[in-house]
Amino acid sequence: MSAPPHQASGLAQLEAVLAAGGPRLARSLARTEERLGEIGESHGAELGQHAADTLSAGGKRLRPLIVFLCSGQASSDATVSAAVAVELVHMATLVHDDVLDRASLRRGHETVYKSAGRAAATQTGDFLFSRAFAELAAMGSPEAVKTLSDASSALARGELMQRADAWSAYVSPERYISRCTLKTARLFEAACRLGAIFGPSENGLGGSVECLGAFGEKIGIAFQIFDDVLDVSGPPERTGKHRGTDLLDGTITLPLILARQRDKELAELDLRTSVTNPAEADAFCERIADTGALTDAREEALTYVQQAKAALDEIDLPAQQRRALELVADGVVERYA
Amino acid sequence: MSAPPHQASGLAQLEAVLAAGGPRLARSLARTEERLGEIGESHGAELGQHAADTLSAGGKRLRPLIVFLCSGQASSDATVSAAVAVELVHMATLVHDDVLDRASLRRGHETVYKSAGRAAATQTGDFLFSRAFAELAAMGSPEAVKTLSDASSALARGELMQRADAWSAYVSPERYISRCTLKTARLFEAACRLGAIFGPSENGLGGSVECLGAFGEKIGIAFQIFDDVLDVSGPPERTGKHRGTDLLDGTITLPLILARQRDKELAELDLRTSVTNPAEADAFCERIADTGALTDAREEALTYVQQAKAALDEIDLPAQQRRALELVADGVVERYA
Repeated sequence: MSAPPHQASGLAQLEAVLAAGGPRLARSLARTEERLGEIGESHGAELGQHAADTLSAGGKRLRPLIVFLCSGQASSDATVSAAVAVELVHMATLVHDDVLDRASLRRGHETVYKSAGRAAATQTGDFLFSRAFAELAAMGSPEAVKTLSDASSALARGELMQRADAWSAYVSPERYISRCTLKTARLFEAACRLGAIFGPSENGLGGSVECLGAFGEKIGIAFQIFDDVLDVSGPPERTGKHRGTDLLDGTITLPLILARQRDKELAELDLRTSVTNPAEADAFCERIADTGALTDAREEALTYVQQAKAALDEIDLPAQQRRALELVADGVVERYA
Repeated sequence: MSAPPHQASGLAQLEAVLAAGGPRLARSLARTEERLGEIGESHGAELGQHAADTLSAGGKRLRPLIVFLCSGQASSDATVSAAVAVELVHMATLVHDDVLDRASLRRGHETVYKSAGRAAATQTGDFLFSRAFAELAAMGSPEAVKTLSDASSALARGELMQRADAWSAYVSPERYISRCTLKTARLFEAACRLGAIFGPSENGLGGSVECLGAFGEKIGIAFQIFDDVLDVSGPPERTGKHRGTDLLDGTITLPLILARQRDKELAELDLRTSVTNPAEADAFCERIADTGALTDAREEALTYVQQAKAALDEIDLPAQQRRALELVADGVVERYA
């Protein structure tokens, strides 16, 4: 029997989270997979195949997990729909990113871009976006739809900001954090808010939407910083990709920003001419590591993890729910450990 | 003083529609423009410019017009939001289409693809999609969000179907109509349904959502058929593009389908090798016209216009509202007349 997608994960703490969540959490995640499968199969033969391939390609299902944990693990129809909707938006952006990056592989599977071409992939992404809102709308909460659409707008702005800053000689740490917030953290925040919105009202957690939203934003920023650290640190056999793919794309991340502050020679180098192939990218990653920037970037990520946990102090969560959320917070910076 | 975008239109009946709608309709359309402008400007400097350029590039604003006419011309916040949301979805698909078609110009303006590149254009489209749902969600009707997201999913499926059928030696008329329904008519239908959903309840129009939805679907199909006729018939100085652009793209439309039924030699020709430049496209358009296929395709469009008007018989609309909707129905097949 093959492991379900959410177990084939680099998130070291995930098994502990699942153990803490118990059978109800496992059941919620299984219902999410089932619903994603139905959506992939139920909308026309042609689109169905592309969408089904994408939806079944798995991934950590980290965002659905967060929805359930923030809802107090309720497995209501509304919570499953929220989990599905957040994952659909996430996958839509991945499908579009793969088109823009001309990527052939993701999570060891052929991308829609590779198997079906850029037109089909663009439209599959549009379809997944649309289904996300249809899924959520059916649950009858305008607040939920607004939460997801605001996150989805932020994603597009963050991606645009990343491409606007590509190859830039200078990006401030503040601008980098703003970008992480838009392109990554807003959707984590939305996952938390949706969980809180659809959580059982008998929880009686006043202000929980705001506090859990703040938790989500902080772990989202930590997640992105750590992702950017992994791109420089590797090792490739754990991350599944070459070191320095961001450098090759011209994406300016925190490790590079910090390294440029410490190594003035490095700061003078133009990525366009000094990082043109995987070997040069590898050497450049070493130079970044030599400055100590990776350690400091990891520290920065850990600071956000602490802020996330502190946000939970504001509400009186059941001990088991709090423990699970803290495990997720730790997990986002302990991947591939 | 330059004419507002909805007057710089090829829709021959539009002035009559606006006259029938009176100052309330004009005010609603003006509020729609204003809101589209705000959305373009209010979401980040970088995205704002692309989005603002796109939103201000105008177009007929036919879908917002239909929302208002179906609502009984109510100019409530909800109706304006619905009109804005439908237009945003429409524009999002245009922005993505321009990327896929590598189009430089639309409505005489540079496309986002041309001015900002494929990445920025893809993300601008995603942003416009997201804002559509945010706009509508704020109005508090899950039914409305579901209506728009279903239409938006259909659009993606229709585009995918069109590309799947590209260059095909045989496409049945039924499949062509299914494609028109998905890629065009569902959004017209949604515009009508949204107008009815948000229309003043004192209208007391029982079943109006269904009937007006049917009206929208039929005029949407007629609109698409007529668009496809114009691509073959021209004249270019009216349509603003060369004849036969669909043929050059390999898009199989009703005029070609009917012409292939009548001219067996034509049916044998492979578009890939026989239509490779504008001159060949022009000659091919002549051959299609010679079979009489354009007349019959126009007749087919008119049949859908009649069905649309018949759908209005099912509800007891005020005379002025009915008259305006009939003018729109006639207008979709009398463009550039």
